[in-house]
Amino acid sequence: MKLEKLVGERFKERPSDCIVDSHALMVRGGYLKYVANGIFSSYMPLKRVTRKIEQIIREEMDAIDGQEVQFPVVMPASLWQESGRYDMIGKEMVRFQDRSGSPLVLGMTHEEAAVQLVRDYGQSYMKYPFMVYQIQTKFRDEARPRAGLIRVREFMMKDAYSFHTSQEDLENYYARCHKAYERIYKRAGLPGVISVASDSGMMGGNISHEFMLLTSVGEDSIAICKECGYRANTEVAECIIQNQRNEASEELALVHTPDIHTIEEVCAFLHCDEKTSCKAVVYQRNFDDRYIVLFIRGDLEVNETKLTNYLGYEIHPAVITEECGLHAGYIGPVGLNGDFVVLFDRSLEGMNHLSCGANVNEYHYTGLDMARDVEGAQYHDFAKIQEGGICPHCKKPAISISRGIEVGNIFQLGTKYTRSMNMTYIDNNGETQYPVMGCYGIGIGRLAASICEAHHDEYGPIWPVSVAPWQVHICAVRSDDTGVRAYADKLYQELQSKGVEVIYDERAVRAGVMFSDADLLGVPFRVVVSPRNMKQDIVEIVSRDKSFSASVPLETALEEILKILSDAR
Amino acid sequence: MKLEKLVGERFKERPSDCIVDSHALMVRGGYLKYVANGIFSSYMPLKRVTRKIEQIIREEMDAIDGQEVQFPVVMPASLWQESGRYDMIGKEMVRFQDRSGSPLVLGMTHEEAAVQLVRDYGQSYMKYPFMVYQIQTKFRDEARPRAGLIRVREFMMKDAYSFHTSQEDLENYYARCHKAYERIYKRAGLPGVISVASDSGMMGGNISHEFMLLTSVGEDSIAICKECGYRANTEVAECIIQNQRNEASEELALVHTPDIHTIEEVCAFLHCDEKTSCKAVVYQRNFDDRYIVLFIRGDLEVNETKLTNYLGYEIHPAVITEECGLHAGYIGPVGLNGDFVVLFDRSLEGMNHLSCGANVNEYHYTGLDMARDVEGAQYHDFAKIQEGGICPHCKKPAISISRGIEVGNIFQLGTKYTRSMNMTYIDNNGETQYPVMGCYGIGIGRLAASICEAHHDEYGPIWPVSVAPWQVHICAVRSDDTGVRAYADKLYQELQSKGVEVIYDERAVRAGVMFSDADLLGVPFRVVVSPRNMKQDIVEIVSRDKSFSASVPLETALEEILKILSDAR
Repeated sequence: MKLEKLVGERFKERPSDCIVDSHALMVRGGYLKYVANGIFSSYMPLKRVTRKIEQIIREEMDAIDGQEVQFPVVMPASLWQESGRYDMIGKEMVRFQDRSGSPLVLGMTHEEAAVQLVRDYGQSYMKYPFMVYQIQTKFRDEARPRAGLIRVREFMMKDAYSFHTSQEDLENYYARCHKAYERIYKRAGLPGVISVASDSGMMGGNISHEFMLLTSVGEDSIAICKECGYRANTEVAECIIQNQRNEASEELALVHTPDIHTIEEVCAFLHCDEKTSCKAVVYQRNFDDRYIVLFIRGDLEVNETKLTNYLGYEIHPAVITEECGLHAGYIGPVGLNGDFVVLFDRSLEGMNHLSCGANVNEYHYTGLDMARDVEGAQYHDFAKIQEGGICPHCKKPAISISRGIEVGNIFQLGTKYTRSMNMTYIDNNGETQYPVMGCYGIGIGRLAASICEAHHDEYGPIWPVSVAPWQVHICAVRSDDTGVRAYADKLYQELQSKGVEVIYDERAVRAGVMFSDADLLGVPFRVVVSPRNMKQDIVEIVSRDKSFSASVPLETALEEILKILSDAR
Repeated sequence: MKLEKLVGERFKERPSDCIVDSHALMVRGGYLKYVANGIFSSYMPLKRVTRKIEQIIREEMDAIDGQEVQFPVVMPASLWQESGRYDMIGKEMVRFQDRSGSPLVLGMTHEEAAVQLVRDYGQSYMKYPFMVYQIQTKFRDEARPRAGLIRVREFMMKDAYSFHTSQEDLENYYARCHKAYERIYKRAGLPGVISVASDSGMMGGNISHEFMLLTSVGEDSIAICKECGYRANTEVAECIIQNQRNEASEELALVHTPDIHTIEEVCAFLHCDEKTSCKAVVYQRNFDDRYIVLFIRGDLEVNETKLTNYLGYEIHPAVITEECGLHAGYIGPVGLNGDFVVLFDRSLEGMNHLSCGANVNEYHYTGLDMARDVEGAQYHDFAKIQEGGICPHCKKPAISISRGIEVGNIFQLGTKYTRSMNMTYIDNNGETQYPVMGCYGIGIGRLAASICEAHHDEYGPIWPVSVAPWQVHICAVRSDDTGVRAYADKLYQELQSKGVEVIYDERAVRAGVMFSDADLLGVPFRVVVSPRNMKQDIVEIVSRDKSFSASVPLETALEEILKILSDAR
């Protein structure tokens, strides 16, 4: 490919709307084009990167006996009604009608389509296990697309679905797929990706893992135990609190707390620690706006994933009106009357000497004793695990919180879909059974962006050889020089004939422009042909990551480049 | 791949709802699964065929300097409003709103997206020409999906868009792309595909060609001149009529024609030839249902594409009500009063001695003289060219009509999109200009089905090596025989290690079942390992198309197969 003909613009200035480096560099380097919120077109360099990622994934899926298939992007609503998700999933799923009025949806995941594809086939235990996968466009109407390719609405995804006759067989395959994912990330230049326990969300099932690239720009937060290696998304990490109850309880006392609303203000006014306050956090459920009042220790935060999973329905932060019976800023567990769902976090269990709202404007209580004053309260884990918190596995206070980008996920789905969609097989005793399913996803564009996050400098991406759009970037500095031109042309042809992917810059531009464009394209090896080099009978070979630099005689340059590439793979 | 693990069902009975062989064989062979009207999932064998077709297309697009990019499936309506097609295109385009109420569409073609991608880039004449292409899912809400993959609603398509600074440059590139298409069809096993002049339809522009696989199950009809080789879709082929006017005109005479409605009945009653009758064909325009009355010679049919192109708006066959002023069965050009659009086909120009309706129930005229009785009539070409018709090119009566499947199309678009979407460049004189565009499409699934139409027998597809899902199909007949099993296993491994794609059938089933499954998978070369063959120290190698059959010694079988494959490519 001649750089002169490469469609796409490259420029120096960081676009002001880019909050992460991968987004900024992909815009600056002519990789992608904004079309609409969370919707992008890809130029050739990005298309080449994503195709290479796809091929790595395809090879690893084939290696664990996956069969590449293709499901539709547009599906009939009836498929999703069978599984029950048509009503369960919110606005993320696009719904529309075709010309005859039949309801259709855009695929955001394909469990239903997978069951439909294999339901007739998998009627005997002898057909199992099997796995089918596809690499296909999906659309999810995200409320908040962000950060370029990190969170989009339309994306390319590899999604795989496995079918088994036992939980044990699923677990064996799940472990194989886990290993395949590790190989994928390693081959794509991200050996540091770790797996963490995760929430199964709308997929259903119990056990699931996310694969995380740890980076400060990640959207997810991950609890990692420095002692035992326990790792989980903070959405699911159990929050263990060791409360110290005071021996003698205080009396419950009403205190006038005028103009005081936040937990910080209350504690400052009462000269107490947030750890000795009982905070109310209020939500409303989406379908009828009924209030949910959750009490939690003042220093902790609510984990909404745990809360939603416990409740079994969607919620949103409450709007507290004058008529609702709640006194914003003064809500407490004593004397709280009204049609509310009232919940207690485990952090309050058995505690005394607490402050709390008195359910009267401008008044708080002190001396609250949960056991004495809040009879019959049941305590559950609704709190976010915190830095320095107790590890749910080894019980040591060694949790550290990191941020990460989720670059893949795997789920043990159980029989959720096979049961609801009535997929059965006859086992070796002639009994009818429901197959057990697993599913396994990787977003291609997000993985490309994550590789760029992990491998870049201020001048551009530093693509690993395995996913780079080209392997060699030839810069013919002063291509009007006959010697330079002839040599560079020849090298370009020879490398291509050896199967090397080459981008060739022979434009009549300054060397500085050439090199900054090369930085933005991030090709692993740059070969500089210039009049000065020609005089010394050499070319310069420089790696994009600056770890390698050499001057090589003109006549052995071809072999040298081929050797460097073969070593780098 | 072991056949035993291949997901998908194979069976003998032709499904009753399949009107073409490719559909029936793909259902019977476990290639595709019906999901909804015009929407299918693909199993592994079809996915492998389509991926090979895609790779052939990709190589040929790259060879004519195409750059692979990717456009979105979901696009903002605003892009289509810019070009004006948002309102022009009917129900084939799916429209919906996202969660925030913004109107979106599903891409059915990507001219708008292509202009949006390169509009900022292509601002100087020095950037031209260039071509971008993608291979991506499209959705078109067809009214009548049919024939399996021949006409679907969701489909994978290669679509390419080229940009030029002159019509001449576009024409040069158009010719290059035409040649690339010829290579694609040839490599995919369809050397007989021909190009024909076609209608540009909703794409706009003037010159366009369709590539047609001639087959009786095709939806399109094509006029081919046996004398000069002229070829055109009948939608656009000019219909030339050499009328013979009688020397002396007859008088216009009213005839009572009770209970007579069709042109056949009229002519039988009046003892005249359909060629001497003036037939009325009535349409209504879609937007206000106003009537369009088209008069044409009784033996000819109306070409609705020509009519629509002439009118510039969409029409539908008329519903003639009692109040509308038209007398169904008795409509004629004399004394026709009402707010109708009245049109005349060239076949009537200058004719006399004609019969026609009298605009009175149960009455016709005879002796109609167009020149005398229908003053001011203007004549245009609205007729379908017919078998034996006059060639518009060489003027000889040598037209034959064939049916064909359209397997690709190319369009010279001119500046329709660059003008409407304000894409400009500065030319070498400093003047602002609109680039000239071409676009080039191939439907992948339809091409796969067409290859199957062209290459199959009653037992299954006969895939060309270039697109076959696998190249070699090993049948280990009686794999419980240790010698058979050991040899077949080894051959399977060795062939794979040489890069050959092999499907391996070592199931404990009868040879008949094995062979009929092999026929359905259509792999070019079958290798039969059996106890009887082992006794003779041979394997049988048979080609799927039966053109080749050989018994080869066990020890040289591997080399022999590799040689056969290399010869076949």
